[in-house]
Amino acid sequence: MATAGKVIKCKAAVAWEAGKPLSIEEVEVAPPQAMEVRVKILYTALCHTDVYFWEAKGQTPVFPRILGHEAGGIVESVGEGVTELAPGDHVLPVFTGECKECVHCKSEESNMCDLLRINVDRGVMMGDGKSRFTINGKPIFHFVGTSTFSEYTVIHVGCLAKINPEAPLDKVCVLSCGISTGLGATLNVAKPVKGSTVAIFGLGAVGLAAMEGARLAGASRIIGVDLNPAKYEEAKKFGCTDFVNPKDHDKPVQEVLVEMTNGGVDRSVECTGNVNAMISAFECVHDGWGVAVLVGVPHKEAVFKTHPMNFLNEKTLKGTFFGNYKPRTDLPNVVEMYMKKELELEKFITHSVPFSEINTAFDLMLKGEGLRCIMRMGE
Amino acid sequence: MATAGKVIKCKAAVAWEAGKPLSIEEVEVAPPQAMEVRVKILYTALCHTDVYFWEAKGQTPVFPRILGHEAGGIVESVGEGVTELAPGDHVLPVFTGECKECVHCKSEESNMCDLLRINVDRGVMMGDGKSRFTINGKPIFHFVGTSTFSEYTVIHVGCLAKINPEAPLDKVCVLSCGISTGLGATLNVAKPVKGSTVAIFGLGAVGLAAMEGARLAGASRIIGVDLNPAKYEEAKKFGCTDFVNPKDHDKPVQEVLVEMTNGGVDRSVECTGNVNAMISAFECVHDGWGVAVLVGVPHKEAVFKTHPMNFLNEKTLKGTFFGNYKPRTDLPNVVEMYMKKELELEKFITHSVPFSEINTAFDLMLKGEGLRCIMRMGE
Ligand SMILES: NC(=O)c1ccc[n+]([C@@H]2O[C@H](COP(=O)([O-])OP(=O)(O)OC[C@H]3O[C@@H](n4cnc5c(N)ncnc54)[C@H](O)[C@@H]3O)[C@@H](O)[C@H]2O)c1
Ligand SMILES: NC(=O)c1ccc[n+]([C@@H]2O[C@H](COP(=O)([O-])OP(=O)(O)OC[C@H]3O[C@@H](n4cnc5c(N)ncnc54)[C@H](O)[C@@H]3O)[C@@H](O)[C@H]2O)c1
Ligand SMILES: [Zn+2]
Ligand SMILES: [Zn+2]
Ligand SMILES: [Zn+2]
Ligand SMILES: [Zn+2]
Repeated sequence: MATAGKVIKCKAAVAWEAGKPLSIEEVEVAPPQAMEVRVKILYTALCHTDVYFWEAKGQTPVFPRILGHEAGGIVESVGEGVTELAPGDHVLPVFTGECKECVHCKSEESNMCDLLRINVDRGVMMGDGKSRFTINGKPIFHFVGTSTFSEYTVIHVGCLAKINPEAPLDKVCVLSCGISTGLGATLNVAKPVKGSTVAIFGLGAVGLAAMEGARLAGASRIIGVDLNPAKYEEAKKFGCTDFVNPKDHDKPVQEVLVEMTNGGVDRSVECTGNVNAMISAFECVHDGWGVAVLVGVPHKEAVFKTHPMNFLNEKTLKGTFFGNYKPRTDLPNVVEMYMKKELELEKFITHSVPFSEINTAFDLMLKGEGLRCIMRMGE
Repeated sequence: MATAGKVIKCKAAVAWEAGKPLSIEEVEVAPPQAMEVRVKILYTALCHTDVYFWEAKGQTPVFPRILGHEAGGIVESVGEGVTELAPGDHVLPVFTGECKECVHCKSEESNMCDLLRINVDRGVMMGDGKSRFTINGKPIFHFVGTSTFSEYTVIHVGCLAKINPEAPLDKVCVLSCGISTGLGATLNVAKPVKGSTVAIFGLGAVGLAAMEGARLAGASRIIGVDLNPAKYEEAKKFGCTDFVNPKDHDKPVQEVLVEMTNGGVDRSVECTGNVNAMISAFECVHDGWGVAVLVGVPHKEAVFKTHPMNFLNEKTLKGTFFGNYKPRTDLPNVVEMYMKKELELEKFITHSVPFSEINTAFDLMLKGEGLRCIMRMGE
């Protein structure tokens, strides 16, 4: 391409300070270095994690920064040593990578790559410790190796999944993070069999994606648990058959679920980040075979507590990171599930705005409205 | 048989009071009622659980009682409705049963039968709420449905595993409880693959059986963890390659293990009953794929505590009851493992005494000497 090897000037949404509205700026994007790829982002979505690091409460602030990690784009140019991707390839950036060399990448089970595992503090590229973004020569920091709130961004090749070029990027971009996380938590980790009873704690985008996984697995009863009663309506679209609001009951919600299900659910998936919900999600599974999966990211000081007899009664507790998907190996197949019309993604996309109106997406998320807001780059 | 349908008079070791030496008495053993089997016990062993209910500390005492639950015997007669067993069959009594009808028995995973799950408080037969043991007409209570410290005992058919009649009962009797529990914890629940690193917490009979499972599974490194340094010598016979005494280290033992193994063990099995060991056993497994299995029975007030991030880092925590073996379905196959000389049982049997010297077996266990003491009935 004409731009390969040159600095590209384009629009990006820059977070200058914690909690202040982003501002669209013209940034310079340097060419990709060894093992890096420069990607033209076509669509990006907003996820809670962006908001969390933008608010930067109780964090070492890393500003100015270009946030964003759920997106779909097209390879513009590749750096030295990149052989798996070429200009024109369609890709999904992922906040955590797959080097294919480390013990985790070589393990059949783990997706927690030693080299490219998510790093929220690093604001620079791993290769040379520098940023590829500048404004008038002054560096702007990266975010989780993706920084998709920019028309062009530079990403390590290990953090890019090459997908079917026929897949609509304005839909499959949501598979970059939360939706795959929830979906994989159910399909790869909880693994309910057909006809199972599954409880989902927390009906945000991640929980609803976990619910979509339960629907795909053929669960016959899907119980949604959320403190917000408004969540039930939306959840019905995802196959929710019963709704329980812990606030409506005097006893712990795990006891309510055990009674409703004659001994406990077969599987539960926790997508709240609240440690009490984690404990309930574990204790509500059936003895003998129940499996609970934790997805929500807890507070630093959170302590998971339970009586060890719950384990001895043959309940299993697991957790997952990015739904146990290996980004490069597995995401292309998740895209195919969508292409075969098994997986439904449209119901996750409740809003769409021009990139220039990115702050509207932040407002919607802060108000708790909708699930995913897609931003159309170049508009 | 000539005795069928009649009361049998025989010798039994009766616990008259908590903590007092057992006394060998002549007891009357009533014929088996519906779904019951009268078994002639040939060999019985002593397990901690017998001692625990004999000491009866902090328990509602159930005395006079005939303890004993690890044993091997031969069917003398069967009650109405018993079709799977006939006089002359060789059997292992088990403290927990398998009705083959309930949701647990029908589940592929669970062995926690709704009908015949262990009940330590019940001192009578389930069918009619009465005891089959009397002395001069006064009832003597049963123990966990087995009461094997008697030359004859009556047991629910669902609590008897029919085994290969060629199997030596003086060896395979130890498969009735602790050895199967530890073995199954590793083979059925932790499931280490060949070449794995496995840590075993607690090197009593159960832990050494878990270690035997690791050896059978082809683990390449087997780390024993015990507070008692004397346990290492014995453990070597079971394939222990490394020994760690938590008392020898200033830092938590899980950190020691993580350092020794470059990130954590692949599998751990906890066989102590101590909740701190349970937490260490969980936290010492490798992120991405590690699995910890709890076997030890904790105190009533014990609380398992850990940071939920340990789960999100893709560690799994499970527990097991009787090594997840279904007593009737699976024990015969465990006996076959011994017959094929895969499983070694001799090394668990450190003592053998005539039944009349049963109090010697109690003394050995109270002093912590040896692993299993076999009592030879009729001597
Ligand atoms: N493990 C991963 O790889 C990964 C990836 C993305 C997101 N996450 C985590 O998943 C969680 C969910 O993300 P989201 O975007 O769907 O969040 P969200 O805030 O949109 O949804 C969370 C839902 O949980 C409900 N909730 C909160 N506390 C509850 C409780 N005690 N009981 C029942 N419901 C409760 C809320 O009302 C809300 O509806 C977050 O913790 C997020 O950090 C994890
Ligand atoms: N789940 C089941 O079905 C089942 C069946 C039988 C026994 N059990 C349980 O298994 C456990 C072990 O039984 P056993 O007969 O081998 O007991 P044991 O007392 O012979 O052995 C326990 C060992 O653990 C060691 N230990 C204690 N605390 C420790 C700690 N904090 N760290 C490291 N080592 C520690 C002791 O020194 C001892 O060597 C018991 O809790 C028993 O109740 C469970
Ligand atoms: Zn890797
Ligand atoms: Zn995200
Ligand atoms: Zn049953
Ligand atoms: Zn026992």
